Amino acid sequence: MALLVVGSVAYDALESPYGKVGRTLGGAATYFAVSAAFFTHVHLVAVVGDDFQANDEAILRKRSIDIDGLERTPGKCFFWAGRYSENLNERVTLATELNVFADFKPRLPQKYTNSRFVFLANIAPDLQRDVLRQVKGTPKLVAMDTMNYWIERTNDELRETLKHVDILMINDSETRQLSNEHNLLRAARHIFKMGPSTLVVKRGEYGAMMVDKNGVFCVPAFPLEEPHDPTGAGDSFAGGFMGYLAGVGSKSDAALRRAMVYGSVLGSFTVERFGLDRLLTLKKSEIHARARHFAKLTQFTL
Amino acid sequence: MALLVVGSVAYDALESPYGKVGRTLGGAATYFAVSAAFFTHVHLVAVVGDDFQANDEAILRKRSIDIDGLERTPGKCFFWAGRYSENLNERVTLATELNVFADFKPRLPQKYTNSRFVFLANIAPDLQRDVLRQVKGTPKLVAMDTMNYWIERTNDELRETLKHVDILMINDSETRQLSNEHNLLRAARHIFKMGPSTLVVKRGEYGAMMVDKNGVFCVPAFPLEEPHDPTGAGDSFAGGFMGYLAGVGSKSDAALRRAMVYGSVLGSFTVERFGLDRLLTLKKSEIHARARHFAKLTQFTL
Repeated sequence: MALLVVGSVAYDALESPYGKVGRTLGGAATYFAVSAAFFTHVHLVAVVGDDFQANDEAILRKRSIDIDGLERTPGKCFFWAGRYSENLNERVTLATELNVFADFKPRLPQKYTNSRFVFLANIAPDLQRDVLRQVKGTPKLVAMDTMNYWIERTNDELRETLKHVDILMINDSETRQLSNEHNLLRAARHIFKMGPSTLVVKRGEYGAMMVDKNGVFCVPAFPLEEPHDPTGAGDSFAGGFMGYLAGVGSKSDAALRRAMVYGSVLGSFTVERFGLDRLLTLKKSEIHARARHFAKLTQFTL
Repeated sequence: MALLVVGSVAYDALESPYGKVGRTLGGAATYFAVSAAFFTHVHLVAVVGDDFQANDEAILRKRSIDIDGLERTPGKCFFWAGRYSENLNERVTLATELNVFADFKPRLPQKYTNSRFVFLANIAPDLQRDVLRQVKGTPKLVAMDTMNYWIERTNDELRETLKHVDILMINDSETRQLSNEHNLLRAARHIFKMGPSTLVVKRGEYGAMMVDKNGVFCVPAFPLEEPHDPTGAGDSFAGGFMGYLAGVGSKSDAALRRAMVYGSVLGSFTVERFGLDRLLTLKKSEIHARARHFAKLTQFTL
């Protein structure tokens, strides 16, 4: 089934101990869409400026990604610059220039309005709700991301959006901030009262944890000797997760567990190289091989 | 097969947001032995002072723990006092009084010298080696713990001891300190050059990771809504891990994976209540039920 994503398509400047790049295609919706497109057809809603390059458009276009919802506006693309510490565990934001993203009003092309799987990447909560209003009927599954900025500045708007969402997919510090609970199980119970029935906590090098009515499911991060750049790992995780579910058209417990694994697989490939580089050469066979590797990493018999 | 452990038997004063206790039985060898005794017969080597209480001795004696190696010396027992922060993720040591432990010279009763499974808890590396010298022949499996103090102060002694050990079982900061590598896979490769063929990294609320020639195996921490006191969690993990292996007399890959799970099971019970409290009421059936719960927590089909 087609998967709708709304979020940022951007240019990033990245710096880590493994290299430096001045301007490369990035943005949450980009990482998400490229990851999800390994599993399903993706409907992309985002905005770019007139500096958006033809070769970057081609990256999206030649995959299973529909870009009729990629609006072009006079001005410049969203730009983000960041630098990672020696061990990649700390990040400094050097620049955030919203540019055309400042006035983004997501508009769904007619053919997108039947999307049954929806992912609302990290944008203003009222815009996330605007997107949901344009979708016909009730989607089978709506998931969203958010960040400290929206939790702090637009908490009421965020609470309103959460009422319409099945899965909240955020990192551990955002989970603690939103719920005002340090313990993640207690945090999940708070968040369930806000609307979502499933919480997926992204924990970086410690993997990811899903909490829902069936209990808890944990998946470790894939052990890598030389991660190069964590940019986009969380969005790739979300793309692998939602892409897998939309591809199989299911939200059963078994499918959700597999989605956690495929999300982790995509996230792990992303951090292997700079920016989108690894995802652009990735093959489906490599994805399935790494999923089997995750099984070896975690499974035991009693 | 009998499992030999050498380490501390102590009194602890503990303080956490869930309560406070002025003097309770503790020490690495205690948590280890009580945990391991669910699976196998334990040979305990430690030293206590003349303030060691009969009811505390009874705790050990009425389990499958041989205490002929528990030396009594004039003076006071090792005493440790610590306080945990609101979320239990930080610990302040308020007092460490070595007392009779300062002059501890481990001596193995004759019947202990045939132990085929050996655990060297966190004591001075030269004492750990003294214990190994008293064991007849080559044990089937030797594991050890250590801490930042020995890594910093007696690094040469520690390196000498590591040459004789199969499994090093430490936390992530100790792993990074000993290997001078932030990345745990690279750290493991460094540590393998020092002697151990297996590294088990204890990661607290993030679970545990085992690295050996077969690859990596990860197990999450059991999600608890209200952990009360992390004291002894790592030693209980080690006790469950080594107890399971000694009980089945195996060090196969499948057994090591199960040992990681049983270690995590014992660690998770320990933190549920203060000090040793939960371990003292624990039943074998509860251990097996929680091990099955770990399977539910981690397993998926592709």
